[in-house]
Order: sequence, then C-alpha cells, then structure tokens
Amino acid sequence: MRIRALRFDMGGPSDVGALRRALDAGELRAEDLLCVIGKTEGNGGRNDFTRELAVRAFSELIGARLGIAPERVEDRVVLSFSGGTEGVVTPHAVVFAREGEAGGAGAAKRLAVGVGYTRAFRPEEIGRMPQIEETARTIREIAARIRIESPADIHLVQMKGAIPSFTWDEAQAARRAGRPLRCDMVWSRAASALGAALAAGELAEEALSDEVVCEDWSLWSGVASCSAKPGLARTELVVFGNSAHWEGDLAIAHGVLDDILDARAVRAVAARLGVDPGASADPAARERIVGVFAKAEADPRGTIRGRRHTMLSDDDISDTRYARCALAAVIASVLGETRIYVSTRAEHHGPLGGGPIAIIARTE
Amino acid sequence: MRIRALRFDMGGPSDVGALRRALDAGELRAEDLLCVIGKTEGNGGRNDFTRELAVRAFSELIGARLGIAPERVEDRVVLSFSGGTEGVVTPHAVVFAREGEAGGAGAAKRLAVGVGYTRAFRPEEIGRMPQIEETARTIREIAARIRIESPADIHLVQMKGAIPSFTWDEAQAARRAGRPLRCDMVWSRAASALGAALAAGELAEEALSDEVVCEDWSLWSGVASCSAKPGLARTELVVFGNSAHWEGDLAIAHGVLDDILDARAVRAVAARLGVDPGASADPAARERIVGVFAKAEADPRGTIRGRRHTMLSDDDISDTRYARCALAAVIASVLGETRIYVSTRAEHHGPLGGGPIAIIARTE
Amino acid sequence: MRIRALRFDMGGPSDVGALRRALDAGELRAEDLLCVIGKTEGNGGRNDFTRELAVRAFSELIGARLGIAPERVEDRVVLSFSGGTEGVVTPHAVVFAREGEAGGAGAAKRLAVGVGYTRAFRPEEIGRMPQIEETARTIREIAARIRIESPADIHLVQMKGAIPSFTWDEAQAARRAGRPLRCDMVWSRAASALGAALAAGELAEEALSDEVVCEDWSLWSGVASCSAKPGLARTELVVFGNSAHWEGDLAIAHGVLDDILDARAVRAVAARLGVDPGASADPAARERIVGVFAKAEADPRGTIRGRRHTMLSDDDISDTRYARCALAAVIASVLGETRIYVSTRAEHHGPLGGGPIAIIARTE
Amino acid sequence: MRIRALRFDMGGPSDVGALRRALDAGELRAEDLLCVIGKTEGNGGRNDFTRELAVRAFSELIGARLGIAPERVEDRVVLSFSGGTEGVVTPHAVVFAREGEAGGAGAAKRLAVGVGYTRAFRPEEIGRMPQIEETARTIREIAARIRIESPADIHLVQMKGAIPSFTWDEAQAARRAGRPLRCDMVWSRAASALGAALAAGELAEEALSDEVVCEDWSLWSGVASCSAKPGLARTELVVFGNSAHWEGDLAIAHGVLDDILDARAVRAVAARLGVDPGASADPAARERIVGVFAKAEADPRGTIRGRRHTMLSDDDISDTRYARCALAAVIASVLGETRIYVSTRAEHHGPLGGGPIAIIARTE
Repeated sequence: MRIRALRFDMGGPSDVGALRRALDAGELRAEDLLCVIGKTEGNGGRNDFTRELAVRAFSELIGARLGIAPERVEDRVVLSFSGGTEGVVTPHAVVFAREGEAGGAGAAKRLAVGVGYTRAFRPEEIGRMPQIEETARTIREIAARIRIESPADIHLVQMKGAIPSFTWDEAQAARRAGRPLRCDMVWSRAASALGAALAAGELAEEALSDEVVCEDWSLWSGVASCSAKPGLARTELVVFGNSAHWEGDLAIAHGVLDDILDARAVRAVAARLGVDPGASADPAARERIVGVFAKAEADPRGTIRGRRHTMLSDDDISDTRYARCALAAVIASVLGETRIYVSTRAEHHGPLGGGPIAIIARTE
Repeated sequence: MRIRALRFDMGGPSDVGALRRALDAGELRAEDLLCVIGKTEGNGGRNDFTRELAVRAFSELIGARLGIAPERVEDRVVLSFSGGTEGVVTPHAVVFAREGEAGGAGAAKRLAVGVGYTRAFRPEEIGRMPQIEETARTIREIAARIRIESPADIHLVQMKGAIPSFTWDEAQAARRAGRPLRCDMVWSRAASALGAALAAGELAEEALSDEVVCEDWSLWSGVASCSAKPGLARTELVVFGNSAHWEGDLAIAHGVLDDILDARAVRAVAARLGVDPGASADPAARERIVGVFAKAEADPRGTIRGRRHTMLSDDDISDTRYARCALAAVIASVLGETRIYVSTRAEHHGPLGGGPIAIIARTE
Repeated sequence: MRIRALRFDMGGPSDVGALRRALDAGELRAEDLLCVIGKTEGNGGRNDFTRELAVRAFSELIGARLGIAPERVEDRVVLSFSGGTEGVVTPHAVVFAREGEAGGAGAAKRLAVGVGYTRAFRPEEIGRMPQIEETARTIREIAARIRIESPADIHLVQMKGAIPSFTWDEAQAARRAGRPLRCDMVWSRAASALGAALAAGELAEEALSDEVVCEDWSLWSGVASCSAKPGLARTELVVFGNSAHWEGDLAIAHGVLDDILDARAVRAVAARLGVDPGASADPAARERIVGVFAKAEADPRGTIRGRRHTMLSDDDISDTRYARCALAAVIASVLGETRIYVSTRAEHHGPLGGGPIAIIARTE
Repeated sequence: MRIRALRFDMGGPSDVGALRRALDAGELRAEDLLCVIGKTEGNGGRNDFTRELAVRAFSELIGARLGIAPERVEDRVVLSFSGGTEGVVTPHAVVFAREGEAGGAGAAKRLAVGVGYTRAFRPEEIGRMPQIEETARTIREIAARIRIESPADIHLVQMKGAIPSFTWDEAQAARRAGRPLRCDMVWSRAASALGAALAAGELAEEALSDEVVCEDWSLWSGVASCSAKPGLARTELVVFGNSAHWEGDLAIAHGVLDDILDARAVRAVAARLGVDPGASADPAARERIVGVFAKAEADPRGTIRGRRHTMLSDDDISDTRYARCALAAVIASVLGETRIYVSTRAEHHGPLGGGPIAIIARTE
C-alpha cells in the first residue's frame, strides 16, 4: 500500500493534459485516485470561476475513465482547487493515488493519505462545538482507517468546510433565541481548524468552547488547511500523515510560520525531509519536493515584524492577494520551486499573521 | 566629511514628522540635506498621486527650514519617491545629509553621496547615444567631485530620467525622417541604465550604439536605478559609492539578482557589509541596515526558474505590483527588514527578469 | 446678499489654477469663500490620497490669500472632496462664495448657502438619536441663519459626518453595557441622513429611534449627502436651499432617484430649474448648470429592475466604483455634462438602491 | 422560415438551465440552433476564464442533444461570449434558432440570421486588404444565402476575428521584408470592421488600403462587432439583417453612437422598431426587446464632450471596464433593460469614442 503523487503544471484552469497522459500511459489508474489539489489563476474570491472550470475539466476526464457521470466524480475523488497564483506561483495540481494492499508495518514511516466526510451539519452547528467535535471525530476515523498510529503523525488536514444553506427565517429565529447563526466562511474555517487541532492533539478538548472560536487566537492548529464553501452540507477532508504501514517513497512534514516572512520555518520543514534548503538552485533537490501547502494571511494587526504594512488599507487590491503573493515568494526563494499551494484567510490556522506549512517530498 | 542617513517609517505619504523632529532636535541640519528617497503607498502608476503628496509635504517642510519657497526645494535637494509598497513593505523614507568638510583619505572607504543633473535633452536624444553618453559623463563628474576614485566604487546611481516634452509635429517629422522618437519612459530608463553601466565600467563604449538599446538585453548595469518622468528636461542623479575621503560609519555594497527569487544574491550583498543574513531575526543586525534599494520586474519571458508565472497575463492587477510584492517579500525574509525600496520596469537594469540590489549599512 | 459659484475642471487633484486665476482677477474674494466641493480621481476608499492632496493644495492657496496658516483654512472654509471619477466624470470643483449684505425679501427665491458645525460628539452618540437630533438642530440653525423660511426650501445638506476617536477599553465597556458602539462610517452616515430628514421635514421625530437606524430602510432623506471621516469630532455641514432673501442668478432643486438607472428623475429635477433635458447637446443649456450632486449605491439586494447585477460579488473592483460609474453616466447622458458629483454608500439617503440628486443652475 | 430568439439570465457563466429547459420543453430544437451570444461576468481580458467556462457548458448541453462530442459543437453552432458585465448589466445569453423552410417574399421584412466562416488566413494577411476583402466576401455570401437583398438590410455582423498562429522566425522575416506582421487583436478587429463596412456598403473599395487601417479613423462601420481570438485561423461570422423572405415576429435596426453618452442614438434605434423609449419603465415595451448589442470605447483622445475623462490614465482598472460600465448604464437607462451586450476595443467600429448599436425586437 503506497501513495503515488503526480504533480504537473497547468497551462490554464482546464488543462488536464498531464493527468490524461499519465492515465493513458498507465502511470496512474483512475480507480486509485484519491484527490486532486491545485492552484488556479483566479482571484480566490467570490467571482473566481477558475475553480469551477478546473473541477469541471477534471470531473469530465476522471468520470470518463471511471465510467461515471462527471457530476458523480466528487463523490469518489476529492477535487480541491484554490484560486490565486499571485506573483511567482505556477498554476499546478498534485494528484494523489493509492496503490496496492494493506501490509504489515515496515521500518520507515511513509506518506499515508485518506479521504472522508463529516456528517451533514445543521446551520446552527457551524462555528460551534458540534462542528469542532464532528470534524475531530472524522479526522480520527480517517487516521485510524489509514493506520496513522499517533496524532503526532498527522501533518496536514485539507478541508472543504461545510456551510449548509439556511433561510432568512432560520437566521432571524436564531438571532432572537440569542444564538445568532455563525454559518459563514469565517466561522466554518475557524471551527474546522480547531477540530483539526483537537484530532492532532494540538489542543485539549477542555480548552475549547463556543466562546473561544474567533476570539482566543492563542488556540490554533499547525496542520489544518480549510477553505469553506457556501452550500456544502458536510465537510470534505483529506488527511495526510506518515505511517509505518505504508510503503512508497513519499513522506510529509510540517511546521508553523510565525509570519509570512518566516523563511526559517520553511527551511526547517524541508530539512526534516532531508531536503537541503541551501541547495535551492539544485534541480535535483528541487525535484524531490512533490507538494508544498501553506496557509497564512496579512497580519490583522496591521504590522509585520513590528512595522506597518498596507495590505489591509488598500481598496484596490485584496489583502488575500498580497498575502499569497508575499508568502509564496518567500517559500519559493527558499525551495527554488514555484509550484506552491498558498491559501489565505487563516482563522485558528497557526498564530495571528502566521500559519501552517506542510511539505511532501520523495525520500532519498 | 561624512554622510548621515535618517531612515523613518511614514504613517502616510505626507508624514514628514520624523524629519521635522530630527531637524527640530538638531540631529540633521536642513542645509546639509542631499536627497530623500522613499516608498509611498500608491500604485506606482500614472494615477499614483502619493508621490506628489510626499514631494509637496517634504518641500514645504524643507523649504520652511531653508527659507525658500517650496517649489524651489527640488533645485537643492533631490526628492525621489516611488509608489508601491505591495505586501510587506513599510512606507518609509531615507534622508541623506552631508556633514563636515573634505579631508584627507582615511584608512577605510565610507559612503559618499553626490547629486547632479545632466544638461537638458532634446526629444530626439532620448533612448539613444546622446542620452547614454551625457548620463555617463554626469555620473563620472559627480563621482569625481565626491572623490570616488574608481568606477568599481560606484554602487548605486539613483536617477529620475528625462522625458522632454515634444509636439505632435516633432514626432511626425522624426518618424518621416526615419528616426522615430524614443522619448518615453521605457527608452529613457533604458538609456539611463546603459549610461550608468558605462560610467561604472560595466560596459565598454564600443559595445553601445543606438541599435542595442531595448534590443540586446545581455547589456546591463548592476548599479543603475532609474525611473523616468514625463516633462522632465534633464535627468536628476544621485550617485552612491564608497570613498576613502569620506568618514562616518556608513558603507554601501551592491549585487545583481538573477531573478526575483534570488535570496542568495541578497545574502551575498549583506555579507559584504558584515551583516549576517542568518541572523535575520536579530534586531541588532537588522538595525545596522539603513537602506535597501532594488530594481526588478516580472520576467518578460513569462517564466521564472523555467516555469510559467501569471503576472503578465493578468488584466486585474499590474505585473509591476506583483513583482514588487514578490521581490520585497524575498528581501525582507532574508534581512528581517520591511523598509525596502523596490521599483520595477528594469530595462537594462540587471539581466532579464532580475535586477540590481544595493544595501547601505552601518559598519560594525 | 447672493451666492456666486465658480465651477472648474481640475487637471489633477492639486490643480487649483482656476481658483487662483479667479482670485487674481478679482472675480471672487477669498474673504467670501464658503466652501469648495469637488471630485478627485482617486478610488474613494481608505487609500485614496487624492482628497488629502486637494485639501492641501486648496488650503495653501486660500490660506495665503486670507493671511492664515494652511492648517487653519478648514476652520473658515469647508473643503469637501470626494474621490472617484469613474467612467465619464471630469475631475472638477465648485467653489461657493457669499457676496453682499442681507437685504429684504425679493420676488424670487434664489440659492442660499450656509455652513455650520454640530457640537462635538461622544463615541456612544454616533448612530443613535443624539447624533440625529444634534444634526437636525444644526441644520435648522443654519437654515434659520441664512433665512431659508421653510423646511421644504432645503434641497441639499452636504455633510462630513463625525466619527470621534475612542479607545479599545471604551468599546469593550460599551459592549458589556449592552450598547455596543456604532462609531463608524456606516452608522455616522446613516444618522446624519436621518438628521437631515428630520430637519427638512421629510420624517417626523416620532418615526425615529435608535432601533430604526440601519434597520428600517423605508426611512430616508432626499436632501442628505453625507460622507463620514474617522477622527472627526463634530460634523461639518453645508446647507443649500432657496430663499427670497437672497439675490443672484442661482437656484437649486432636488429629487430622488428610484435606482441608479433613473434618468426620469434627473430630467424632472432639471426641468424644475427650467433646463430642458431634451436639449442635452445644446451647450447653452448645459452651461446653465453649475453643480450636480447625487448619492447612490449598488442595490444591496443584488438586483436592479428585478434582474441580477454583479457589482456586489466582484472581488476585483469595489461596488462603489461601479455604482458611481453607472450613475454618473446616466446623469451625464441626460444633462450632457460630465462634471458631476456622485458619491456612494447611501444608508438612509433615498430608497434602497436609489438616492438623492440636487442640481444648481443659473436661472434664465 | 423564421428566426426564434430565446433570451435568458444566467446565474453564472455555466448556467445553461434556461436553454436546457427550452430544449426539454420542445420550445427550441437543437438542430435549429444557429448561435448563442452572451455576456459573462469576467473581466473581458486575457485572464477571463468565464468565456471558456460558458463555451464548455453550452457545448456539453448542445453536444449531448445533437449527439456529437462537445468539442465539435462550435463547428455547427457559433458560441460567442464576451466577458464584462460591469455595473448594471445582467449576465445573460441570447440563443438564435432557425425554423421552417425558405418561402416566398412576404409583405414585411423580418429578422434573418446566417452563420459563416472566412477561409483560413495567413499571418501576413491580417490587418491588411486580404483580410478586409475576404471578410467582405464572406459577409456578402452569407447575406445572399439568407436572402438579404440589399446591403442596407445588414444591421449587425458579429465576428470572432482570426489571429492565426505564427513563429518568431516568420515575424522576423516579415519585419526584415519591410512588412511587419499585424497579426494581433487590434489589427484583426480593425480589418474585420472595415470588411463589414465594405460588405454593408458603408465604404467603397477605393477608400480602403493597407495604409488606412488603424490610421484613418474617419473610416468605420456602423454594423460591425468584432472580437479577435489568438489562435483562430479563420473568422467566424454571424450576419443579422432584415429580409422579406423571412417570417416570424422579429426585426433588427441599428444606429451609431457618437460617444458613450449618446442616449439619443439609443432612443432613435428603439424608435425605428416601434419601441417607445419614453416608456422605459413599461414592462411590456421592455419585453419586446430581445437583444441589444453595442460596441464602444473610452475615447482615446482622453476627453468626452470636450472635457477630460480619467479612464485612460487609471492603472488600477482597465478603461474597457469603465467604458462598458458607462455605456451599458446609459443604454439601460433608456430602455429599462439590463440584459445588454456591450463590448469594447472598437477600432473602425463607429467614430472615435463612439460605436455601433443594434437592437432586435419583437414587432408589434
């Protein structure tokens, strides 16, 4: 049992050519696909249609190979696209597939990847303990299923957070009842991250309550990566960790960025995988990296390293675009690699102004 | 004879408070001021009025202290503001002042700064050999005046390039004569950079001709930094170098970025000044730096490190904004400092996709 | 006693040339200036520095003529600039001056203009009845002073709404006390508009309460035009109306736009001043207009004339820019005039998605 | 033989629901479809992927109904989407279908629509007489085929202009031969418009030459509407006119806007179709309109009605977005209709700063 990863540049949001060729050549089998995680060249906002275009293109390709309708593909394969390749980022995708059968534990821990879904949420659960706990429960279940044996071996939880639909009347009723709905992107990301922190053993259950969500920023996860999607009833999750029950040549490590200039943290994570960050210009070292995933934001306090930044007072360009551009450039300058997944809006994802970073690389 | 530098954060484009306090406290004398170089939080484009606002605010303050009208200040002090503090950059200015009298040569070379102007150009000279040669001549003259004894001791030539006004008829006449005017920002920046390369001994005269301008990108300067300004008849220049005839505790070094991810080049320049880039988080080391000046651009070939970037195909946000954001983040991540001057559009300023970087720091 | 108006195009935010020439030529006297209202070519948002640049330029000019420091000018003359000349709008300013002495009532009502200030507000008063009532009181006081004899003769109340500064502790204390501060732009504009409605007789006092602010959108003013400014302790007001006690050749009329496509309402207001909207291409008719002031917004319900618009779901460009662009084009197409003051964010300024419009024109 | 038009709002670029329902209900037959013309909510620029998304969605739907592969649909049905619904525009599409057999000439002229393609162009032909003549020839051929009997009965020629691919060597060779390639969007639009002018009898052949293209702006078409698409070898054309050989209840009229504020021209075209523009708020009148197509641009001279506009000096927002926003608002304010197709970049499409407008409406 091992994970295969195929990473490829995309010439546009609908460019699935590399995956098609890999399927045609038998390098990957459609039946083995677990998830596709990619960055597309949109604005990452409400009117970013590059994600829909990518999902449509991948759904058609994979659906045709699986012999199912395109609109059924997402029931079997997680398609997770994030818009925003500001600056040096190359639009790209990483496809993860699982091959072989479960075996005994080996000598070394290798990359394990599992996919799962929470139960459907009710609107009033979002942003509160029920979402946190169900998210944690699902992560633990996935981890157990893929035989990750310690919470410390969970290194990345990629989530598409639920935002169930609700009516105006429901919202009004909740408000009158003194428990206004939190059913939006901010709260769903926040509770998802806290759920991941709970599952990964970063936070204890007793530290958590409805009150701390979006309030106590000292509580955070270093492995969470959540985007939330209006209309989604249940959260989709992909858990990445290391396990001795898996073979193959891939491993994952993670760390936490103190801020979006934290090159040191990037180097430290790479070093844990035996990638020498000093050799960034060395194409061989660079090629060992197969995925870089980070989450961060423009520091909401308006400063970075104690000095003013202007990302939050600019009405021409969103702070999310600046934050992705800046952080991706820092990571790329350390790793010599421009195929980087950086996403923003990072409530309870790492400390204020910082965020988690995970790297998947081939072992030496 | 020595250079004093005062660097300060700006709360907005018209925030001259720090300079006012320094003048009030007698830390600097208005009579000694040579130039002010700053970054303001505008878009760096045609409708960036933050530069005008800054120039107006500094002109009023300095004019009042010198007892001259605000509109006369720029005849005595070069005010050079560049818009664009994308991402992590803190709006700031660095004021350079000259104190004391010329003395004999000392043991160590220290920062020397001199200001000058070319003669007024005719429109047909811009972008061609006359501009290149007059720019080089003026740089040499300034360097000699401030006793920089070798072209290799010139490390930064900050220029506001001339773009003399012309009539439609003049443009038509030039076109009919087979020598269309090159009197615009692109050509003025290009010829200014080539003039700096000539003066700094980076290129030989025989390598230059009207034909190579904006054509042979293998010809470039590693010390030039030019913005061009429509309506300006003559180029304003500030030459920064090291000279044994100067005292004080400041020195300058420069290097060339291969691309906007070239963290190595940043570290190398810092190391030349004895600033340990590994100690980026050390506030003491950081405080030794008093100015960082770089010029670069989104690689016009559409790739970086061999992979596609999307900066040039984005019709929502200018590539100049992405390029400044990315490069400044890389530099800041190395130096632990967000007061960085990065400007873009870099014809013949360093190799394609790269550019010059200079750092001024206090000696240990 | 009469109002003189000087309207002029601006070549940039600091272009005060036309006012300087008028003062030099004796067409206007600095002592008579009441206010300057203008549109500058900024984004109208937080990082719009064109307003500051314009205020600085006008303050210097007027200060020099009045023999006072530039920073004292705004105590005597209201300088009211709004950023955003999207689309067809020509950056411009209108200067209003008062000439002559009060006389007896004439046969016809002519334009009367008066300036005033509310008392300083405490943070907890903003967005609540105290702000509404003090705003109304001040408007009535100004109207009485300039001898506008009926509330129905008030046609435009241009306001710079107070947003007094407060500390974090004050905000927390207010929240704990169950009366969270409303001390921001949205609430200050809203309460200012309701104050104007009260003074102009559009709403009765008993219809108003803390609860209706930003809640009951059926309550609105057709004469208000408020922008709010953080840090401003008191609201600055300019009241425009018609009065038989004034002479001159200017008069004002107003109306209410149902939505930003409401060309009919524009025509109706123009017709009230005897300007034939059918003759829009006629330069003579056009020249009679000396000021057009409107306020509106992208309909917050996401539709216009029953159909979807995309202004509110665009993360590249602010809805304020689209709304100003669209409305100004409609007005300009009716009046044949591009010097139009349109500002956005219009809480309680006209019906949802619509807003007030006032025109000042020379009488025939 | 008659044209049926189905117009519908789109909830997003891939919303084909209304066409699906019409096909399901038998209101339209897939075999009869001629073309789909629509506006999607993108930026209209290089990174506008909403057009690709729309084409993909319509291709899938229509392909499934015709029993052909999605990528073959555009060989049978012209899919023409333009990005940019700035301001009040509702994203929408209009589907045209042809029903019935050719019959004898009737009493009244009704809407006739025909589709065709030029031959493939060589790169050196673009922007020069060969493109102009072949475009004209194809329009005449289509017009003859659909029995439009006079050039004056052609009212709209919707074109997707060819921009054949070429190599760097071909471009260099052309430059050395003294005939630099014009193979880009500007020239292809320009020559397409002149070709339409020739076919529609607006210009005589002897007025045209390679030299006048993009040079003599007094030459233009009032019926052309061309966007150009890199990589397209042949121009796709849809000709709209009136013919006595067609039945049905639709007719088309066109006019020319002097500038983007020209409400009069809009009213005049509507009046020609018996739609009373004064009754803009009347839903019945509004519903008679089934398509509004205009093309215009920010006046390249930097003024409108003799006064400065700022659309061309804004580096935050493209002039195309302002121009579409402004013109669409003007048209919508006249017609009371927000489903308007406005596209920009209008070389030789109407006079400088103006452009063609065509309206299709149900006859009374």
